[in-house]
Amino acid sequence: MKKVSLLGSTGSIGTQTLDVIHANAEHFSVVGLACGTNIALAREQITTFRPEIVSVAHAADAKMLQEEFGRSITFCHGVDGLVEVARWQEADVVVTAVTGAVGLVPTLAAIESGKTIALANKETLVTAGHLVMAAARKHNVAIIPVDSEHAAIFQCLNGESRTTVDRLILTASGGSFRDRTRAELAGVTVEQALAHPNWSMGAKITIDSATMMNKGLEVIEAHWLFDIDYDKIDVVIHQESIIHSMVEYVDRNVIAQLGTPDMRVPIQYALTYPDRLARPQTERLRLHELGTLHFAKLDTRRYPAMKFAYDAGRAGGTMPTVLNAANEVAVAAFLQGKISFLQIEEMIERALTEHTRMDHPTLEEIQAVDHEVRKKLQSVCS
Amino acid sequence: MKKVSLLGSTGSIGTQTLDVIHANAEHFSVVGLACGTNIALAREQITTFRPEIVSVAHAADAKMLQEEFGRSITFCHGVDGLVEVARWQEADVVVTAVTGAVGLVPTLAAIESGKTIALANKETLVTAGHLVMAAARKHNVAIIPVDSEHAAIFQCLNGESRTTVDRLILTASGGSFRDRTRAELAGVTVEQALAHPNWSMGAKITIDSATMMNKGLEVIEAHWLFDIDYDKIDVVIHQESIIHSMVEYVDRNVIAQLGTPDMRVPIQYALTYPDRLARPQTERLRLHELGTLHFAKLDTRRYPAMKFAYDAGRAGGTMPTVLNAANEVAVAAFLQGKISFLQIEEMIERALTEHTRMDHPTLEEIQAVDHEVRKKLQSVCS
Repeated sequence: MKKVSLLGSTGSIGTQTLDVIHANAEHFSVVGLACGTNIALAREQITTFRPEIVSVAHAADAKMLQEEFGRSITFCHGVDGLVEVARWQEADVVVTAVTGAVGLVPTLAAIESGKTIALANKETLVTAGHLVMAAARKHNVAIIPVDSEHAAIFQCLNGESRTTVDRLILTASGGSFRDRTRAELAGVTVEQALAHPNWSMGAKITIDSATMMNKGLEVIEAHWLFDIDYDKIDVVIHQESIIHSMVEYVDRNVIAQLGTPDMRVPIQYALTYPDRLARPQTERLRLHELGTLHFAKLDTRRYPAMKFAYDAGRAGGTMPTVLNAANEVAVAAFLQGKISFLQIEEMIERALTEHTRMDHPTLEEIQAVDHEVRKKLQSVCS
Repeated sequence: MKKVSLLGSTGSIGTQTLDVIHANAEHFSVVGLACGTNIALAREQITTFRPEIVSVAHAADAKMLQEEFGRSITFCHGVDGLVEVARWQEADVVVTAVTGAVGLVPTLAAIESGKTIALANKETLVTAGHLVMAAARKHNVAIIPVDSEHAAIFQCLNGESRTTVDRLILTASGGSFRDRTRAELAGVTVEQALAHPNWSMGAKITIDSATMMNKGLEVIEAHWLFDIDYDKIDVVIHQESIIHSMVEYVDRNVIAQLGTPDMRVPIQYALTYPDRLARPQTERLRLHELGTLHFAKLDTRRYPAMKFAYDAGRAGGTMPTVLNAANEVAVAAFLQGKISFLQIEEMIERALTEHTRMDHPTLEEIQAVDHEVRKKLQSVCS
């Protein structure tokens, strides 16, 4: 029985994680839950899974839930609460499914407590990959990716020597605006941007898919997770999202992971690794019914966010921190109707241009840069 | 330095194996060569690779070559010669690249001598899979497949537990007549049948691809190599031969091996396994240039050979021996212009219908059945 703490329980990955756990109740139990302000859903989850510790965003909600559920469950709140859930002694695995750089500190806390990390929070690796990976090595902790692309690569590396990897090939669906030219992006609505053709995901990642920044963040995530140069990470457009990513070895053998697009598959794999459990709830892949798989070159003029991400990743230091913070603010502003779709890219580009890179930043320096970028851009948006 | 004995050196797999060895002369040397009647090519190969032992089909050729090359090389001939090369003491790896059931006895000899087997001779496993796999287990010998489909599956199983395999999915290009109906197969010529769209291979396997018997033999081969039920082996038509085969795990993750169609890739992998060596001579896979991969259901009414193979495999005993022997004779007769393309299937079906199955046959019983089927069918053809 693996005991799981789940950060971000009411989001898309969070609810799907609980779905996987519920379907495999003889293998997994939930000891910790952390969420934000969706108290109605949190209440249901607490009732169903009976965790030992729960954290919510606000003190008042924590107090209310404490009164409802009584002393057998510990309630806490805010960033400190997230950290408490992340390092909860009973947990074996921590699923980090919060969105954004807010996941950094709790992820580091979980690593320092020796927990296995099922990482669904790519922004953590983007903003401070060097710190997270160094901590994981120091504490001999496994970081198992939940992102479908990285879960694919992780599996394609099973039983192989890393020295024989020639390149990683991430697939990208192209997002909701794949078939539009740049000229046709002016004036697109939030609703249009949120209509992803293949995957059911949270709002932030769906917008990131539309700008292709999601793939850019994934390139940086792959760099850190698999310790591989940016020159050896390629992206190919694959509109059906059936091949989730690939590894090309030096002998020209390419190993790929395929499947129907269902996030519960990589979530379950991260929880069961190195074992596998039957998953009859997910549709079997039937390639003869799909008929065709398409592939196309990714054009960085069409998707400037890809270029921002490669450049920031290669530059290193605090540049990915700036990339991520600017993107988080810009996407939130777009979702709130404060800026247009194309202004997302403009804001990110300006933030990167205006920043003076700092090398080998500490956690405090990263947090300071992150804070500064957000503050500056938020003042522009409001 | 791995020392290689190569059975079938002048055939398609044989020459490509020597090409791989030549390109990696610091890793491999040739200690044994066995071929048939192509003495001109054998002479070149002996000059280039300087093996310690060489076998050819006929005594007269062996004598002639012995006189030419002198006493530093041992020359022998016939089936006994093949066996000598297969068990040559200096060899670490034996590549079995002869065509047909003639590979059985030398393969068993190599296994009994403790050699690693790089198996390119699928008929050996079809005709006597239970004996070959039992011998491999007894002598703790690895059998590494060279067939592109099985090399794909072999790689997709790396680092995984066999108990979590749900099914194997072999891909089939459809062969040279993929786009013809059965009615359009009447009167096709040998030349048309030999024009395979994707792979450059020997005549026998190319005809087997056109009838789809090649895939049927591969299903039986996969059954033995990977110890998996026929119910768990599927075939899908994939005309581009880019995905070489797949493994679906119980958790709906599908792992596939992809690459440009070049037999030297699986040959090299079989020689280097568990390591990998750079192979710049083969084109990198560029999915965005290919653009589209197609998949379609395999229709056993269109390809009755598939049904013969599944039925023979499931029936077991001597049925696969009959399937293989009848197919070898029928394909040879077609290549010699003695029967039509559609008569290949008719001959195989009749041989299977007329045979009374023997269970758990010994080597001698298999050889007797093989001999009897060939004799009977050859008398029909002549």
